Amino acid sequence: MFDPRGPVLGIDPGLSRCGYGAVAGRGRDMHAVAYGVIATAPADPLPERLAQLASELDTLVAELRPSALAVERVLFQNNARTAISVGQASGLALVAAARVGIPVTQYSPNEVKLAVAGHGGADKEQVQLMVTRLLHLGEVPRPPDAADALALALCHQWAAPLHGRIADASERTPVPATSGYDRAVAAALARDTR
Amino acid sequence: MFDPRGPVLGIDPGLSRCGYGAVAGRGRDMHAVAYGVIATAPADPLPERLAQLASELDTLVAELRPSALAVERVLFQNNARTAISVGQASGLALVAAARVGIPVTQYSPNEVKLAVAGHGGADKEQVQLMVTRLLHLGEVPRPPDAADALALALCHQWAAPLHGRIADASERTPVPATSGYDRAVAAALARDTR
Repeated sequence: MFDPRGPVLGIDPGLSRCGYGAVAGRGRDMHAVAYGVIATAPADPLPERLAQLASELDTLVAELRPSALAVERVLFQNNARTAISVGQASGLALVAAARVGIPVTQYSPNEVKLAVAGHGGADKEQVQLMVTRLLHLGEVPRPPDAADALALALCHQWAAPLHGRIADASERTPVPATSGYDRAVAAALARDTR
Repeated sequence: MFDPRGPVLGIDPGLSRCGYGAVAGRGRDMHAVAYGVIATAPADPLPERLAQLASELDTLVAELRPSALAVERVLFQNNARTAISVGQASGLALVAAARVGIPVTQYSPNEVKLAVAGHGGADKEQVQLMVTRLLHLGEVPRPPDAADALALALCHQWAAPLHGRIADASERTPVPATSGYDRAVAAALARDTR
């Protein structure tokens, strides 16, 4: 199942709408392989909704053969009920990856914003516009859950090689990153020097 | 997989320790078929812990062939991180049941206390003593997560036939609740009229 040349699959977990977005390529060649949402009907019983989500996540992983999953980290939310159902959905995504040996990393919303838009305080619209531009899409990906999932995949495309380099190198010179694009270039360079 | 004559499997969800307890029989013949905990190592990565828990829950369901699952409902907790990991564990239990067509019901801690000990404000020790007595066990089941899971199964053993009766009956007379059993009846009735 695990294909090191496969795309990075971003997952924006949710029970009613779970966004997914797969990104392949490096630097200027990065492009979206697939994106969309897995939706479950709020009227259906919770166990069936979760089982449906688990099954569709398994199918997605089997079809896209990702090299890595990037899943949004669930943080405290004001609405406890939402936090629990988002937690349940994220748990299923982590299991879908781990069960077939695909490395999976969680990123907080701020980490994603920082990587994609250049600052952790970026709003949703800025992130969506950067996703659209960086992936050379004709329009902003809809629904927003799909755009958020693509942003997670982009975040991982940049972060993962840097993590690798940091783990490998005994000494290193930090690369000053000023924009999302600069970070992409820095990440691509970092990958090439490994 | 689904066996209508199988035991009720209670699950007290948790990531470090997930309690399980299977109860078979009716009334005075009720007895524990199996109980224990599924433990995962806090030092392991979260995706692997969740995948291990999912796999062991699947095995448990395959081996015990339960007729129903009773899973503790995750409510708001002061510690958001705990709420999320308990939510993730509970989601896996719901999926383990739903994916093989086993009916699964969630019960709040208060519903379990009411059914087993006779009042929703019962403390953990009272519930554990009632579980020990009702299942004719020689000693209090350890660890507490296992006892809590058995209490969930007991709660469902009492609630489920009533659900069936209520679904059948077009009219009914409320029963004055005096004992734990009667209270369980009243609680089940009250829940269904909401």
